[in-house]
Amino acid sequence: MSLTDSNAVDVARSASLASRQLATLSNEARNEALTLLHSALDKNRATILAANKKDVELATQAAEDGTLNHSVLKRLDLSRPGKYDDMLEGILSVRDLEDPVSCPIGVLLIIFEARPEVIANIAALAIKSGNAAILKGGKESTGSFAAIATVVSDAIADSQVPVSSIQLVKTRDAVSSLLAQDSFIDLVIPRGSNELVRHVKENTKIPVLGHADGLCSAYIHSDAKVQTAVKVIVDSKTDYPAACNALETLLVHESVLESILPEVASALLAKGVSLRCDQQSLEVLKKVVPADKASQISSATDTDYETEFLDLVLAIKTVSSAETAITHINTFHSGHTDIIITESSQEANRFMNSIDSAGVFWNASSRFADGMRYGFGTEVGISTNKIHSRGPVGLEGLTIYKYLIRGDGHGAADYHDGVGGDGNRCNSTLPHMCLRHHLHEV
Amino acid sequence: MSLTDSNAVDVARSASLASRQLATLSNEARNEALTLLHSALDKNRATILAANKKDVELATQAAEDGTLNHSVLKRLDLSRPGKYDDMLEGILSVRDLEDPVSCPIGVLLIIFEARPEVIANIAALAIKSGNAAILKGGKESTGSFAAIATVVSDAIADSQVPVSSIQLVKTRDAVSSLLAQDSFIDLVIPRGSNELVRHVKENTKIPVLGHADGLCSAYIHSDAKVQTAVKVIVDSKTDYPAACNALETLLVHESVLESILPEVASALLAKGVSLRCDQQSLEVLKKVVPADKASQISSATDTDYETEFLDLVLAIKTVSSAETAITHINTFHSGHTDIIITESSQEANRFMNSIDSAGVFWNASSRFADGMRYGFGTEVGISTNKIHSRGPVGLEGLTIYKYLIRGDGHGAADYHDGVGGDGNRCNSTLPHMCLRHHLHEV
Repeated sequence: MSLTDSNAVDVARSASLASRQLATLSNEARNEALTLLHSALDKNRATILAANKKDVELATQAAEDGTLNHSVLKRLDLSRPGKYDDMLEGILSVRDLEDPVSCPIGVLLIIFEARPEVIANIAALAIKSGNAAILKGGKESTGSFAAIATVVSDAIADSQVPVSSIQLVKTRDAVSSLLAQDSFIDLVIPRGSNELVRHVKENTKIPVLGHADGLCSAYIHSDAKVQTAVKVIVDSKTDYPAACNALETLLVHESVLESILPEVASALLAKGVSLRCDQQSLEVLKKVVPADKASQISSATDTDYETEFLDLVLAIKTVSSAETAITHINTFHSGHTDIIITESSQEANRFMNSIDSAGVFWNASSRFADGMRYGFGTEVGISTNKIHSRGPVGLEGLTIYKYLIRGDGHGAADYHDGVGGDGNRCNSTLPHMCLRHHLHEV
Repeated sequence: MSLTDSNAVDVARSASLASRQLATLSNEARNEALTLLHSALDKNRATILAANKKDVELATQAAEDGTLNHSVLKRLDLSRPGKYDDMLEGILSVRDLEDPVSCPIGVLLIIFEARPEVIANIAALAIKSGNAAILKGGKESTGSFAAIATVVSDAIADSQVPVSSIQLVKTRDAVSSLLAQDSFIDLVIPRGSNELVRHVKENTKIPVLGHADGLCSAYIHSDAKVQTAVKVIVDSKTDYPAACNALETLLVHESVLESILPEVASALLAKGVSLRCDQQSLEVLKKVVPADKASQISSATDTDYETEFLDLVLAIKTVSSAETAITHINTFHSGHTDIIITESSQEANRFMNSIDSAGVFWNASSRFADGMRYGFGTEVGISTNKIHSRGPVGLEGLTIYKYLIRGDGHGAADYHDGVGGDGNRCNSTLPHMCLRHHLHEV
C-alpha cells in the first residue's frame, strides 16, 4: 500500500466514524455549524479572494499558452460580481430549509474540477443532511481550495459537528485511492467534464451520482405557437451554452418547416448560433436565410445528433411525427432534460410519459433544470441515473430511510397463518402496535 | 461476439423497447395482465407442478449424492402445502395495491437460484410498476422455469403488456453476457446465495440491489425485561434460521449476565441452538446450564462475530455499555436488521438513530424484516444498499421520478436576478405557473 493509499484509508475511515456521530446531531446543532461556516467565509473573504486571484493568474497564463480551456478560467474566478455573495447566501438558504425527513446516506466523496464555490455548496448540503463529505478539487483551484479548506475546518471545529465530517483532500493523485474505499464511502459525486465523470464511473464500485453528458433535445410539434417556439428554443440554446442543461438538438415536425423553423432559425442566427441541418430543413433555410448569415448554416452529419456541443451550435432534424421525435430522443439523448413545444395537452402528456429523462418540459426552457430553480437552495449536481436521485440533486438526494419497528416482545411466529413458520408463509402484515416508519417520525 | 452475447443484446434491447411502451400503459391495462397471469398459472397448475416434480427428483438425487445443499431442495419444491396458492395470491395482492406514484426505472434483470415462485412474484411487481424484467433462473429449477415461462408468455400475449416485457432466459451461462448490457438494463437484482450476490456485484456496471450477508444482531440492555428478551431472541433465532433476517449475534449488557442471559440461553438451548460465547458469558452459563445441554455451549472465536450461520448457532458477547454494543454492531453487521431489547425509550431512540441498518427494531423480532410483513404484497428482495431502496423492496423500490414542467414559453433569462445569465446566477426559483412534479401528478 502506497502512502497515498494509506492516507485515503485514514481519510475515509475517519469520515465514516464522523458520519455516525453527525447522524445523531440535532437539526439545531447542524444549523449552528452552517451559521459558523457562513460567517467564517464572510470574515475571510479577502484571504480567500487573494488565494483565488493567484489561481486565476496561473490559469490565465495556462489559457494563453493554450494548455487550459477558457471556460475553466471563467468558472475558477471567485471575484466575478456577485459570485462570492451567492456562495455565502447558498449556505444560509440550505440552513433555512426544512430538516430533511430521512436519514443520511453516510459518507460522500465529491470530486470536482475548477469551481471553488462547490466546496461551500457541498459542505452546506452535507452538514444539513447529516452526511460526512470528502472533497477533492482540481489542480487549477489548488490555492483557493487550500484557503477555503482552512476556513471551513476552523469554522466546524467551533461547532458540534465532528471535524472529520468535512475533509478537503489536497494530496495530488489521491482520486484512485479514494475511489477504492468502498467499505467506507457510500456515494461518489463527480462534478466536471464528461471525461472526469466517465473516469470515475469506470473506476469504482461505489455508486456514482451524476451525469456525463447533457444532450438536451427539443421537439417542435405541428401545432406549436411560433412565438413560444422562438422564445423557448433561443433561451434553451443561448442563455448559457456551456451548461449541461443547454439545448443541443432540435427536432422539427415537417409540417412546420416552412412556417415555424425560419422564425426560430432567424432568432438563433441573430444570437450567433450555427445550425447543422438535415437535408429537408437545410433546403428550407437556404431559401430564407439572408446572405450574411449563410455561413452559419451547414449540413449535419450523423454524429452531430450525438454531440453535446456546449457551444453556440445546434443540430436540426426534420421528423414526420411526434412518435418519430420520441424514438429519436429516447435513442440519442442522455436522459437529462428534453422539451416539447405544442399547444396540445394530449401531445404534451404523451411526450412527457414517453420520454425517459430526468426532466421533461412542455413549452419551457431546458435551462430551468437547476437545483436553485427547483427550490433546493443549491445542488450537489444533476443526476441522469435511473435509481435513487434524478435531475438536480439537493438534500433529498443525500438521504435514505430506515425502517423502525417498536414492539413489545413481538415474535414473528405468532403471526404465521397456521401452516407453521418456514419463512415463506408470512401472510400477516405487521401487528398494529408495531409502528413502522422512517427516521423522521421517531 | 459469441452467440450468447448477441442473444443477450437482443434480449436486453427488446426489453428496453418494451419498457418504453409498458411505461405508457394505464394501471387498468397493467392490472388486467396480472389477472390473466393469475388465471393462467392457476389453470396450468398440474403441468407446472409436474415439471417441478421432475426438478425436485433430480435435486433429491443430487442432495443424496452430496452435490446439492438440502436447503436448496426445500426451496425448490412448489408442491409444499400452500406454496402454490401463496404464489397465486401474491399476484392478486400486488394487482390490488395502489398504482405506484412515480415512473418505472426501465429494465430489471433478476438472477435467482432455486425458488421457482420468484418468477411470479417478480413478474407481478414488474408489470404493476411498469418495468420490463429479464429473469434468469438457476439450473436446479430448469424444468419448473421452462413450464412457468411458457405460461407467463402466453398469458401476457393476451394482454396489452408487450410480450418482451417479461423475458425468461433459459440459455445456460447467459449471466455474464446479460451483466454486460448496461446500456439497456437499469437495475440488477440477484436473489440467492452470498456467492451469487458478490459475483454479480463484482461483474457489472449496472446498479445492483440486494444484500450479500444478513448478519443481524440483538443487544440486551441493562433494563430489559426478561420475558421480552426471551421471546424476541428465541423468535429471531429459531423461527427460520436459514433466512437472511434470522439473528446471528447476541450482545448482552454485563449487568444482566446473571439475571437475563441464563433465561434466554435456556430457551435457546431447549430449541436446539448452539451458543458460542465470549469468556464472561461462558463462565456464567457454565454454572447454570444442565449437564445434558453442556455440549451446546462453547467458546466463541473472533470470526464467529462476523459469521452468518444460517443455522441453529448464535454468537454471544458481553458488552459494558450501549455505546459498545452500537460500535460493535456498526462494525460487524451487514446493515440488514438489528435489535435492541430495553424498557427505556431514550436508549431505544439512541440505538435506532445510531445503528446504520435498513431495519432497527425495538423489542421486536428481526424476522419482521419482510416485504409481506411490511404490507408490500411481496418483495423483489431485501436491500442493504445505502441509496435508492433499503430493506424489503416492493413497488416503491422499482420506481423513480421525473420532473415535469408545464410552461407557456418560459425562458430562464427572464428569471435571472439582473446580473446577467452566466449559469451561476439562477437565484429565482421556478415561476409559479410552471408546475413541477412527479409523473403521477400529470
